Amino acid sequence: MSAEEQQHSPDDVQQHLRAVQELLARHRLVEELAHRQQDAVEGTMHHEHLNELQDLLEGMHPADIAFVLEALPLEDRLFVWNLVKAERDGEILLEVSDAVRESLIETMDPDELKAAAESLDADELADLAPDLPPEVIQDVYQSLDTEGREQLRAAMSYPEDTVGALMDFDMVTVREDVTLEVVLRYLRRFDELPDHTDKLFVVDRDDHLRGILTLQNLLTHDPEMEVSEVMGTEPVISFVPEDDASDAAQAFERYDLVSAPVIDSEKRVIGRLTVADVVDYIREESDQEILSNAGLREEEDIFASVWDSVKNRWAWLAINMVTAIIASRVIGLFESSIERLVALAALMPIVAGIGGNSGNQTITMIVRAIAMGQVEQSAMRRLLRKEMGVALFNGVVWGGFLGGMAWWLYGSWQLGAVMTSAMTLNLLLAASAGVIIPMMRMRMGKDPALGSSVMITSLTDSGGFFIFLGLATLFLL
Amino acid sequence: MSAEEQQHSPDDVQQHLRAVQELLARHRLVEELAHRQQDAVEGTMHHEHLNELQDLLEGMHPADIAFVLEALPLEDRLFVWNLVKAERDGEILLEVSDAVRESLIETMDPDELKAAAESLDADELADLAPDLPPEVIQDVYQSLDTEGREQLRAAMSYPEDTVGALMDFDMVTVREDVTLEVVLRYLRRFDELPDHTDKLFVVDRDDHLRGILTLQNLLTHDPEMEVSEVMGTEPVISFVPEDDASDAAQAFERYDLVSAPVIDSEKRVIGRLTVADVVDYIREESDQEILSNAGLREEEDIFASVWDSVKNRWAWLAINMVTAIIASRVIGLFESSIERLVALAALMPIVAGIGGNSGNQTITMIVRAIAMGQVEQSAMRRLLRKEMGVALFNGVVWGGFLGGMAWWLYGSWQLGAVMTSAMTLNLLLAASAGVIIPMMRMRMGKDPALGSSVMITSLTDSGGFFIFLGLATLFLL
Repeated sequence: MSAEEQQHSPDDVQQHLRAVQELLARHRLVEELAHRQQDAVEGTMHHEHLNELQDLLEGMHPADIAFVLEALPLEDRLFVWNLVKAERDGEILLEVSDAVRESLIETMDPDELKAAAESLDADELADLAPDLPPEVIQDVYQSLDTEGREQLRAAMSYPEDTVGALMDFDMVTVREDVTLEVVLRYLRRFDELPDHTDKLFVVDRDDHLRGILTLQNLLTHDPEMEVSEVMGTEPVISFVPEDDASDAAQAFERYDLVSAPVIDSEKRVIGRLTVADVVDYIREESDQEILSNAGLREEEDIFASVWDSVKNRWAWLAINMVTAIIASRVIGLFESSIERLVALAALMPIVAGIGGNSGNQTITMIVRAIAMGQVEQSAMRRLLRKEMGVALFNGVVWGGFLGGMAWWLYGSWQLGAVMTSAMTLNLLLAASAGVIIPMMRMRMGKDPALGSSVMITSLTDSGGFFIFLGLATLFLL
Repeated sequence: MSAEEQQHSPDDVQQHLRAVQELLARHRLVEELAHRQQDAVEGTMHHEHLNELQDLLEGMHPADIAFVLEALPLEDRLFVWNLVKAERDGEILLEVSDAVRESLIETMDPDELKAAAESLDADELADLAPDLPPEVIQDVYQSLDTEGREQLRAAMSYPEDTVGALMDFDMVTVREDVTLEVVLRYLRRFDELPDHTDKLFVVDRDDHLRGILTLQNLLTHDPEMEVSEVMGTEPVISFVPEDDASDAAQAFERYDLVSAPVIDSEKRVIGRLTVADVVDYIREESDQEILSNAGLREEEDIFASVWDSVKNRWAWLAINMVTAIIASRVIGLFESSIERLVALAALMPIVAGIGGNSGNQTITMIVRAIAMGQVEQSAMRRLLRKEMGVALFNGVVWGGFLGGMAWWLYGSWQLGAVMTSAMTLNLLLAASAGVIIPMMRMRMGKDPALGSSVMITSLTDSGGFFIFLGLATLFLL
């Protein structure tokens, strides 16, 4: 293969997708034709496209196959899935999104699932396990050796979002009293090193972590030197399995790590965390944040059935309906005021809406700063003062403008003044709630992000209606 | 240093932050005391805390110092910034967020900035350049050698969000006709290898990329073998500087890369992309998405002045005000209807609100699938059908429930029927717009995400009011 042909660029996966779609379409066409002509062309042309498709799939990276499967409607997806060689099932199942994985696993029988699971490492198996039927896990567990069982048990015992759930068990350890030459000879005995091996873990005979030998130090130092002379003098960044995964991810980002040892309470090396796992985690976390901000429980298979989509979305709609009903009842309190001055009905959504937008700005910023660990309880007063300042400014400027508009539209300067005051008060409410809600949740040890947007919007809706209609009832009627 | 002391866990940066705050507080206290007692304690205690603080900072990783600076209010931040050794200024400026970087650069004079800039590599300098005064860049440029100038020019010439803007120039290249032994000896001449070197780029004498020699192959093969025998037979994943950064990031995630060569149109190696840059890019992108969904232009320094915050947030508020005014004018059209049946005023925000929520769910899902490259134009009809199905289901179920509530509250089954129909129609509107808007934007080659949430909310607000009040006017009055 020449260098020319070897190049592989990031657009290739799109081309693969199109090629698969093309071949599927041709295959369908031939099948249709065969059906009409009573199988006249069967045998030759029929299988041609299938073979071509199979060859294409064989040459593709498992992650690319996963991408293609996600992009295909259910019927095509299962068709392609059946063409994939069975021994690759495991790695592909690992790569696809949860929703698509479910749709694939549903079509596999226990033996296929068992074969797929057995092709995986313990840490990968642990990732897949929640989606597998219990009897398959039981069978696979039986087939593991003692070390594998121990690792699988360990990997499955740590809660999601901990380092323990992300770590793998592939690592190379060396002793500190040997020379680099010995290490080099030891490595040459490997067929291949574990992925993402950028450092070897230096341990004593009881597996206690003594230090780190980076490949870079191994390669740039005299082979006659001993490991202990070469191993880094900088502090070793290591994790325990109970560490929060997002803290670990921040450490990987901050210190540009490729891999790091995971140790137990006695500093024995028990596993390893790699940047590949961390990148997946970061992507998943931020996807989760974006999805849940929009009220989706999880990543949706875009070709999911109507019913699956409804299930994924109903919780958020139900919550929002409750808050909408509350807001509606607040308006109900002032129906007689609205009857006497119908302009209120047209203006009230503005007060509520702008308050909600402004509150979401504040709370998003505070929640993010808390998640980064950059906000202390002591900063609350300072943040409150600043946000109230912003709210007051916006209230006077935007509220003043809207008050002017109300005056102009309805010819009442009193209505304008009520509009401006209500805007300002609702913005102040939004600002203080935007600071206080997440800070309180943090103090109570709860996740400050959870439902923050719904809460603040609900408050500024009901609050905005109440303030505006209340002021109007007091001063205009 | 014993292994015990060397351990470094991800919580350390939080402890550093608290230690800095503690020392600052003590320093302030002593200063206050000194001031009251006319400098009696000056000289001894006064400097004690400062020295301690300086020692603490000296032992900290630049990324940790950046973290601490971001978490401190402006006054404390600048105080600590002045204690940091000048030669570390450059790397720290690279690590802090844009908003905080601005606040630091403002206080530095041109000579300090020049010194800081000169401590950086060309690709790092290019990242910092947009924030530096032109005369500083000019000076730094003059001080570079020809190669450095060339690299700086190249790095600055690529638009943001391309591979060219992310790449660095630190790489190790080897020839294919030498033995691994020669490569090993060559590497030993380096003091250190570039960060994230997991592979060497195999090039011919004109720097054309011939293949890849992973350190893992280098270490596990017989040193007598030639590079050409050992270099990977799998396709080389490489990028050109014009490649979209987010495509490259997806490729890094998909293929678990640590580094990859960047080549020009003639396949000459011109630079390198590393997972560290990619991780930063992924984080930045998803942060940007979350921030802009909430209407923040950029990451905000939480201790920014009121005025800076106002500037960061006003554009979104202004757009939302325009859409709110439009919705208000739609209501204005039906004022006489509301006067005759005031229940409409209380019920209309429910129709608009639930429509907005549901539309945001749809559009978020479609936009994400488009961004992943998994949606073809041809899928539009299928997606539309599915989303309309979900909308119809929700309209009948939730709309039916709300219609029942309206009937019960206001004793009119006709009002209930209008409520149910309006909910269903608005949900259908939300679903079709949620599919069509991003698909249309994709067809026009525009970013489907941009402003999608504002657009759909505006449509479902005004649309919801119009549908509900319109139906009520037709059938109830």
